[in-house]
Amino acid sequence: MPGPVFDRIAIFGAGLIGSSIALAAREYRAAKKVVLFDKSEDVRARARSLNLGEVAETMEAACSGADCIILCVPVGAIGETTEAIAPYLQAGVILTDVGSVKEKALESMSAHCPEGVFLIPGHPIAGTEKSGPEAGFASLFRNAWHILTPLPQQDEPYNSAVDRLASFWEMLGAKVEIMEAARHDRVLAITSHLPHLIAYNIVSTAHDMESVGEGEVVKYSAGGFRDFTRIAASDPTMWRDVFLNNKEAVLETLGRFSEDLAALQRAIRWDDGETLFREFERARGIRKAIVEAGQDTDETNFGRNRPPKK
Amino acid sequence: MPGPVFDRIAIFGAGLIGSSIALAAREYRAAKKVVLFDKSEDVRARARSLNLGEVAETMEAACSGADCIILCVPVGAIGETTEAIAPYLQAGVILTDVGSVKEKALESMSAHCPEGVFLIPGHPIAGTEKSGPEAGFASLFRNAWHILTPLPQQDEPYNSAVDRLASFWEMLGAKVEIMEAARHDRVLAITSHLPHLIAYNIVSTAHDMESVGEGEVVKYSAGGFRDFTRIAASDPTMWRDVFLNNKEAVLETLGRFSEDLAALQRAIRWDDGETLFREFERARGIRKAIVEAGQDTDETNFGRNRPPKK
Repeated sequence: MPGPVFDRIAIFGAGLIGSSIALAAREYRAAKKVVLFDKSEDVRARARSLNLGEVAETMEAACSGADCIILCVPVGAIGETTEAIAPYLQAGVILTDVGSVKEKALESMSAHCPEGVFLIPGHPIAGTEKSGPEAGFASLFRNAWHILTPLPQQDEPYNSAVDRLASFWEMLGAKVEIMEAARHDRVLAITSHLPHLIAYNIVSTAHDMESVGEGEVVKYSAGGFRDFTRIAASDPTMWRDVFLNNKEAVLETLGRFSEDLAALQRAIRWDDGETLFREFERARGIRKAIVEAGQDTDETNFGRNRPPKK
Repeated sequence: MPGPVFDRIAIFGAGLIGSSIALAAREYRAAKKVVLFDKSEDVRARARSLNLGEVAETMEAACSGADCIILCVPVGAIGETTEAIAPYLQAGVILTDVGSVKEKALESMSAHCPEGVFLIPGHPIAGTEKSGPEAGFASLFRNAWHILTPLPQQDEPYNSAVDRLASFWEMLGAKVEIMEAARHDRVLAITSHLPHLIAYNIVSTAHDMESVGEGEVVKYSAGGFRDFTRIAASDPTMWRDVFLNNKEAVLETLGRFSEDLAALQRAIRWDDGETLFREFERARGIRKAIVEAGQDTDETNFGRNRPPKK
């Protein structure tokens, strides 16, 4: 079993992802020492009482001696955070993040990142609908993809830094992928950003139905609605930033979604059962591929009741 | 413990719901005898090999001696099925269904239902994304709502028939609610029908993205997309019939959804972070209510990784 990849990692932002990295790095011995900082004094206190690692009182103290710095703040806060810690970044340190939008994250970090720092944006495709330091758990990244979007121009020291960061995430149980930032943002627009926008929207629509009480919506949510509310429970600040910072890809994907939805609406209005059936049948193919690719357990989602395990 | 409510129930349609009722009625002793019929010879053979109950070769044989007949066919097939079995319906028998649209189901059954038969439409708010006789399991209805939409004019024998049918579903573990058919259809349009339409639609949109390969969609589906594909794996025939038969309520709800989505789209285009945050924050309230009402386990849906049970 390989030894720790880093001597000391500094995690900025002790939310779901930051606290999970802290717990995982210790449990899987991916770093000798874990230091966390959060700009909220309350969150720092909670992180301390949760024993997530050493909690620093200043950004300078957090950065001091770190060979890897991981920004776990909302995409909209990556720029200001990088600017604030820039004075404490030594040459040779790895600076990465976990933001859901990679072009903007890269841009925000590059703007303030000193010479000699290895800037390697990243994004773990893992999470839950929970937020805050209490939500973290060490196994969050097991078998999840972790996408790294390194800079285009790469010399040998940079490449070996990318390798070290990849090894770190692999020790947390993740499967690492290298991808170009713009491509990441297009792929995630459809696999993650649009689904969250749709989920938030349908919950708002339900909330505003005068003809149906909220009590009834809650009571009969097992019909499918409930699964959307789970996604829509995700952190509003994080998601606001995702949509504001991946605007083009999200608007393009959303435009296609709305066109397709209008076609289904028309099919319903004109009793076009063939179109409805054809579209619904098509959807099963992708679901089958996801289950076969091991990207989902094949458990039902509807209610507490699951078929007995064979 | 009370004895069986019915001497002999006849289940028409051995799909997920029909086969689950058969297994549950036996396991929880809600009926002395369970008989199934399916118009597909193949399904009848599978139902027999699964030992779901006695499988009849004709509708007449299935109805003979039954004191409760449960139609478990798609909403669009309820009318023709009622018409086909009408000659075999004795006075005093209970005729119910499990269709997701109650006004249309009531209308279709009334059109062919003989005098003296107790017609009591019903709908279990339970299911999985699986279809067919193999998908059934006895605990499907435990703690799930079962909505009955009895006829408006009710005499004493009819009311006691409703009570017996309610007791039957309660023995299967369901919580029975009495509701007016039109109201049921409005409530389910938002809690079930629209969510399924949206899920089918986003999967189609993803399928058609030229800029993103299906392989990538599958690979990175843990970001949220996957949860939609699970819902979109539901039976296409059943859902086509739902949308064609609850047209007005679905189109009304869908219209509101599209308006709300256009507002979010505009907020993204104009960098209106306040509107996005406000809408996303609102969504959490309903999620909280659903968890507190015990309508969902509070497990994360994202990937195989769940926080360790406290």
